[in-house]
Amino acid sequence: MAQLLSSSCSLTICSRNKPYLKSFNQCPTPFSITVASNNSKTPLRKLSLQEQKPRRGSVVVHAASVSTSQETPVQTSSRDPFKAQRVMVIGGDGYCGWATALHLSKKGYEVAIVDSLVRRLFDHQLGLDSLTPITSIQNRLYSWKSLTGRNIELYIGDICDFEFLSETFKSFEPDAVVHFGEQRSAPYSMIDRSRAVYTQQNNVIGTLNVLFAIKEYREQCHLVKLGTMGEYGTPNIDIEEGYITITHNGRTDTLPYPKQASSFYHLSKVHDSHNIAFTCKAWGIRATDLNQGVVYGVRTDETARHEELYNRFDYDGIFGTALNRFCVQAAVGHPLTVYGKGGQTRGFLDIRDTVQCVELAIANPAKPGEFRVFNQFTEQFSVNQLANLVIKAGEKLGLDVKTINVPNPRVEAEEHYYNCKNTKLVDLGLRPHLLSDSLLDSLLNFAIQYKDRVDTKQIMPSVSWKKIGVKTKTVTA
Amino acid sequence: MAQLLSSSCSLTICSRNKPYLKSFNQCPTPFSITVASNNSKTPLRKLSLQEQKPRRGSVVVHAASVSTSQETPVQTSSRDPFKAQRVMVIGGDGYCGWATALHLSKKGYEVAIVDSLVRRLFDHQLGLDSLTPITSIQNRLYSWKSLTGRNIELYIGDICDFEFLSETFKSFEPDAVVHFGEQRSAPYSMIDRSRAVYTQQNNVIGTLNVLFAIKEYREQCHLVKLGTMGEYGTPNIDIEEGYITITHNGRTDTLPYPKQASSFYHLSKVHDSHNIAFTCKAWGIRATDLNQGVVYGVRTDETARHEELYNRFDYDGIFGTALNRFCVQAAVGHPLTVYGKGGQTRGFLDIRDTVQCVELAIANPAKPGEFRVFNQFTEQFSVNQLANLVIKAGEKLGLDVKTINVPNPRVEAEEHYYNCKNTKLVDLGLRPHLLSDSLLDSLLNFAIQYKDRVDTKQIMPSVSWKKIGVKTKTVTA
Repeated sequence: MAQLLSSSCSLTICSRNKPYLKSFNQCPTPFSITVASNNSKTPLRKLSLQEQKPRRGSVVVHAASVSTSQETPVQTSSRDPFKAQRVMVIGGDGYCGWATALHLSKKGYEVAIVDSLVRRLFDHQLGLDSLTPITSIQNRLYSWKSLTGRNIELYIGDICDFEFLSETFKSFEPDAVVHFGEQRSAPYSMIDRSRAVYTQQNNVIGTLNVLFAIKEYREQCHLVKLGTMGEYGTPNIDIEEGYITITHNGRTDTLPYPKQASSFYHLSKVHDSHNIAFTCKAWGIRATDLNQGVVYGVRTDETARHEELYNRFDYDGIFGTALNRFCVQAAVGHPLTVYGKGGQTRGFLDIRDTVQCVELAIANPAKPGEFRVFNQFTEQFSVNQLANLVIKAGEKLGLDVKTINVPNPRVEAEEHYYNCKNTKLVDLGLRPHLLSDSLLDSLLNFAIQYKDRVDTKQIMPSVSWKKIGVKTKTVTA
Repeated sequence: MAQLLSSSCSLTICSRNKPYLKSFNQCPTPFSITVASNNSKTPLRKLSLQEQKPRRGSVVVHAASVSTSQETPVQTSSRDPFKAQRVMVIGGDGYCGWATALHLSKKGYEVAIVDSLVRRLFDHQLGLDSLTPITSIQNRLYSWKSLTGRNIELYIGDICDFEFLSETFKSFEPDAVVHFGEQRSAPYSMIDRSRAVYTQQNNVIGTLNVLFAIKEYREQCHLVKLGTMGEYGTPNIDIEEGYITITHNGRTDTLPYPKQASSFYHLSKVHDSHNIAFTCKAWGIRATDLNQGVVYGVRTDETARHEELYNRFDYDGIFGTALNRFCVQAAVGHPLTVYGKGGQTRGFLDIRDTVQCVELAIANPAKPGEFRVFNQFTEQFSVNQLANLVIKAGEKLGLDVKTINVPNPRVEAEEHYYNCKNTKLVDLGLRPHLLSDSLLDSLLNFAIQYKDRVDTKQIMPSVSWKKIGVKTKTVTA
């Protein structure tokens, strides 16, 4: 089916309540695919998947915007406990989004993925690739349907295009929106001026559009927004969950926790948090801001079921998170690259806990008007501690792992106090996976399995916080 | 001369060191006007003003971007105390910007105005008009030159267009940038989704571009950025100037003061503050954030010199500030419209103090890497207190002034604690004008003088914080 879609494309694969498919190549019932233009007067063009199959890989769909199913939709509402909640996962083709979409689908939620696929474009532009081979979003969804019988709807388009976003809301009618649909790399936002501007514009305006769509079309819809622990920076006092009670000159108030973000990406999340808080107060939006730590790991129960469901695994200097990169370095015999002194301490969590946390937030929604903040991480480590854990785990696998200190490309404290609260998700039932276990079963083994795919030129930091300029950069691997 | 300029136009009137002109219509020396395309290969087209005068009012300049003077520029630097500082006033055609540009020019600074003139477009689109008749920016600058012999350069274009902004920096080489160039109305930002998005995009990206331009072209340039007291909201503790020292669980840190903005406009200023703070830390930018209160008044020493220098005076429900609107209401016999209970308390200042404060900030610049925050207001009043002051001042002029309470279109506390610090500018030498004096000499008399120009349909609030929707609104007067 469609392998190449313009950024304004939208396409829905609708096949609710169809019988279990034994394999991807056996397709007993024709799925309905509807491609519609934004112009409501344009007749819908309906195709069956079986018609399309012989042309798989060659069909280019240029139609813009929304699709609608001709099948009777399941009417669900968050007020009706007997019907499945309908969850829209924006950014559902990405690292956290894909794992989350499958997990929620497995748990019985009706799921739609909304994604522009621009993350895949970034890889092409920067010459990067996931360590794990990942297939197209269309193939991923076919495979999931084949394996589980569960359908995930797909809307391809840009949420900064409000006309597109409106149609997804009117068509899917979400009870909850999980919003991962942002440019999510700090180094990407620090490549050059145009990427800095893109990051803030894309993230801030996309989130504003989601807030307006909820207000206009689904006012009871619960927004679950991915924030970042990086919003807080590294203050010299304990970090609370979103708010802090301050006594000052004899008076007391509970106020938003002060923010000190340290990249244009992290700042975009700070902006989002302020915007969302305002709309909760002014319009009664119900929202949960998940201030997530650094995610590691690649395997979840659902993505492990088939190669076509595998998640992406970024290890490069731009999209790779510290621990994932260390594991790849260990696997290929590259020294672990510790930035600066290595005393930088952050909160971390396994991707299996990301999906758990999102599910807990959805299952226990914020009240109307409530802006709730959860710190979403399970353990704290410094970069040096991480490196030591990888060295020890490597030893068990016969790897001789070394570290090197490289000049820190970021502007950040390399030795600092760090103590963050993270009890709210635990109180809701989170049962963390601990890093010491995950290193072997979800990280190093994957890195070793795919070590022949590693491009060692991608490993070193290529973006400097201080050297960013106005000239558009072509970052070469 | 050019009365209508496309938003991508730029035009500089260059006439440094020319003799004093007795009146606007006597123009002894031909000013050089250069209109250049962005393409450096396109030859510059140079015209003299005397050539142009017969065609005044009919010439439309469509050329894009920057102009350059053929005269030898005065080489100035902030490091050389014997030469005038060069100050770029972004948004210099607006209410605060115009008064500031003239004040700085009078004080001996070399001034350039950078403005897209979009504020004048808003008036056309919304059917609004200044109470005071204002002439074109070109006429304003001719008059200023005629009266004082002092030249103010003019760059017309949009700072969100980085190519344009770059050229203004390379051409003018500012030692300080005063940045008023933002969409500055809270109600405007709450009209509809597209205005909300415009406000945040325009303000945030414009400021990012200014930061990048300083980093790239003028790293010692001091940024004086107009923020707003509205960034703080109305917390139940004293409001400090930008930062607060917090002791929490036995540890202490001084952190950015928590922000609780209450419109998409106010939020855009919060976003700016976070972005600027980051660039001070990461790049060593020197910046002063002037968290300004509600400005009132229209007359400054410079704008009072000639009718063609008069400042704008907004009294409508969208751009009018509370006190300016009350004075117009009093002048025309309309009851003062108190929103809700009228206990909303804010900081206020006379526009004569705005220009003083900006000058003080420029004359005492922030250090490299310093992000300095000044609360820029002189007195605190509740809306009810303001109304009572206008009633009393009206009595002295024989006006019978009444008040009415109208439903509050905003979402805000109508009774609350409010105590803000504002000592930093006073410590630098600010000598405030007090409202009780200004009411008669700069406000009510102006309102009475121009009362025949009042459009009473503009007075009532037309924008609701709760009813904002996604459909683009045409707000009719």
